[in-house]
Amino acid sequence: MLIVHKYGGTSVGSLERIESVATRVAKAKDQGNDLIVVVSAMSGETNKLIGYAEHFSQNPSKREMDMLLSSGERVTAALLAIALQEKGYDAIAMSGRQAGIKTDSTHTYARISSIDPTLMKNEIKAGKIIVVAGFQGINEDGSVTTLGRGGSDLSAVAIAGAMSADACEIYSDVDGIYTTDPRVEPKAKKMDFVSYDEMLELASLGAKVLQNRSVELAKKLKVKIVAKSSFSDAEGTVIGEEKKDMEAVLVSGIALDRNQARVTIREVADRPGIAAEIFTALADEQINVDMIIQNASSDGTTNLGFTVPQNEINRAKSVIEGFDHDIGSMDFDDSVCKVSVVGVGMKSHSGVAATAFTALAKENINIEMISTSEIKISMIIAEKYAELAVRTLHDVYKLDV
Amino acid sequence: MLIVHKYGGTSVGSLERIESVATRVAKAKDQGNDLIVVVSAMSGETNKLIGYAEHFSQNPSKREMDMLLSSGERVTAALLAIALQEKGYDAIAMSGRQAGIKTDSTHTYARISSIDPTLMKNEIKAGKIIVVAGFQGINEDGSVTTLGRGGSDLSAVAIAGAMSADACEIYSDVDGIYTTDPRVEPKAKKMDFVSYDEMLELASLGAKVLQNRSVELAKKLKVKIVAKSSFSDAEGTVIGEEKKDMEAVLVSGIALDRNQARVTIREVADRPGIAAEIFTALADEQINVDMIIQNASSDGTTNLGFTVPQNEINRAKSVIEGFDHDIGSMDFDDSVCKVSVVGVGMKSHSGVAATAFTALAKENINIEMISTSEIKISMIIAEKYAELAVRTLHDVYKLDV
Repeated sequence: MLIVHKYGGTSVGSLERIESVATRVAKAKDQGNDLIVVVSAMSGETNKLIGYAEHFSQNPSKREMDMLLSSGERVTAALLAIALQEKGYDAIAMSGRQAGIKTDSTHTYARISSIDPTLMKNEIKAGKIIVVAGFQGINEDGSVTTLGRGGSDLSAVAIAGAMSADACEIYSDVDGIYTTDPRVEPKAKKMDFVSYDEMLELASLGAKVLQNRSVELAKKLKVKIVAKSSFSDAEGTVIGEEKKDMEAVLVSGIALDRNQARVTIREVADRPGIAAEIFTALADEQINVDMIIQNASSDGTTNLGFTVPQNEINRAKSVIEGFDHDIGSMDFDDSVCKVSVVGVGMKSHSGVAATAFTALAKENINIEMISTSEIKISMIIAEKYAELAVRTLHDVYKLDV
Repeated sequence: MLIVHKYGGTSVGSLERIESVATRVAKAKDQGNDLIVVVSAMSGETNKLIGYAEHFSQNPSKREMDMLLSSGERVTAALLAIALQEKGYDAIAMSGRQAGIKTDSTHTYARISSIDPTLMKNEIKAGKIIVVAGFQGINEDGSVTTLGRGGSDLSAVAIAGAMSADACEIYSDVDGIYTTDPRVEPKAKKMDFVSYDEMLELASLGAKVLQNRSVELAKKLKVKIVAKSSFSDAEGTVIGEEKKDMEAVLVSGIALDRNQARVTIREVADRPGIAAEIFTALADEQINVDMIIQNASSDGTTNLGFTVPQNEINRAKSVIEGFDHDIGSMDFDDSVCKVSVVGVGMKSHSGVAATAFTALAKENINIEMISTSEIKISMIIAEKYAELAVRTLHDVYKLDV
């Protein structure tokens, strides 16, 4: 089997940890696998380099930031290859460029445009373990680019896709994806399997494991991801294509997002395009709107509700104040949170939503906003009820069983 | 004018120093010059990375070491470019690869095979200041290579050659080349000019400024080097082609090499090839032989003398013991030093050597070995006389005038 391993900053955060990553990789090789290992910078290194750059400029050139930051992953890649060689394994370190990763020119947040796996294929054929510096590629000009937050995961998934690897194992300091946050609900269980779509909706549960961008790419390239811990031998969670027999499982997990603020705009002039104008204005200010709810209109006006990250609420206010001739009143609440019930099984079971509403009502938790997709029901509630709501929903769907 | 600046590790050893390098570069740009700046890693960085590698292996793979070590220069290049941009200058950072530096595959000590200056020419034409990560290039496979000790100087000289730059200014913490070591002879004077050949022979005087490899390359490419201090505005020393009117100057400087041990082999069998056998055996053990003296033979045997670095004397002994059937006796002395008188003017003045011998004799300094080249007279003397010999010779040739 050809397996891609990816180790994040914490997993390679010290020389001792790099050593133990080498041991883990060696073991996988001994089991007869071909291996490509993608590594992040040692934890703390990237922040140190950012600090250096900020000494000179509050707004450093993104092209030069990419050249600066890409050095951290190269250091780890070289060190891990050396550690493997010392153990007697034939290993070779590669930069993103050498691994054939081509990107567009959006420095600091580049998108992978293609991978030329020729060199990697040759080295695998020669029996070598390849260690790739994650998070980076080069653009058409040959300048170094980086892929943004979670970029090493993206490198790993893209390489797994280009090399038709059997699995892409993402190692971090958590051992998989849980039915909900174990700090909130100690009865949370690690899932053996979660589908790409569920994982995307459960983003907050997987935030420490991998970013949605990587899940989307894995879905597109049909790369099987395994989220595992680099500190244990636990099995981990497989993230893959939805299985036919999964219909039995209605709900997979409960996600919680505390970083939500609610905005309600009342008596919005019910003329075509007004909502578009408001959200365009918000987007122009780089405000990230999450849920949007618009009630059916009556008496010529409508109410519009949406949520934004809590630290963007003041900027959102300023934008909306610019529309004061088009709206009646505004109402803000930054002490709310979003609780979501996720599961591919709920597509065909309308009862899932009713179960959630009933369970929360029993606890006297008022639901301020509701938004549903095919596999998710999200509810905005007062933040003080966050933990209670999570535990209640986890319990009512019997996720601990 | 197109000028290449090169800043060593001490000159970019902290963020504050990088800032002051930026100021110096900006000033040169303001004076109407086009600029390419070659930088080393921040002092201490390279040793830190070597320490990391040694944690894993006492003999790490050279290819991976190159990938590891090349990251330090990239960091400096990116930071300096950011500092220049912040001052309002259009600057662009380049790795060795982006600067078009191709090398052979001798990892950790690669030789530059060619430079493709296309990208640099375009950026200079666009008015940009180019900041190049020194010490590195890529080989035919696209693997990163490094150029060995003094590699950033080599990068700078090679770039200056490929770009037909008007000068290559090498900045360090000393302000030029002196007639002798000022710590030994306080009357030592900074030279305004020294020829390539003299500089090669004065290697020990320029050791902190630039390696002979760079001087040789500069001579080959006819690159004018200026050795300057990055901590002052002093004029520096020009290293260039021998001038016609230089014949007036007999002696340029006095070099001292304390790291010498003398080996004398007596009654060497005078058969063809015996010297070759001995020196081949020494070379096979990586022992660096410096001076070699063989006296004309008499009575069927000859005496052979040579010097090696002091810390290699024991290994040299072992090698020579293998020849005990071919030699009479051996004699070792590791308390010697080499004093050299250098000057292109001495080519046509035989009296220069006599002056040196006479001056040392007057001080009762016994000369154990003598070796001469066209522009140098080297003498091995007891190490305890090192300073006295340097001062005596500096004085007799009136180098302080």
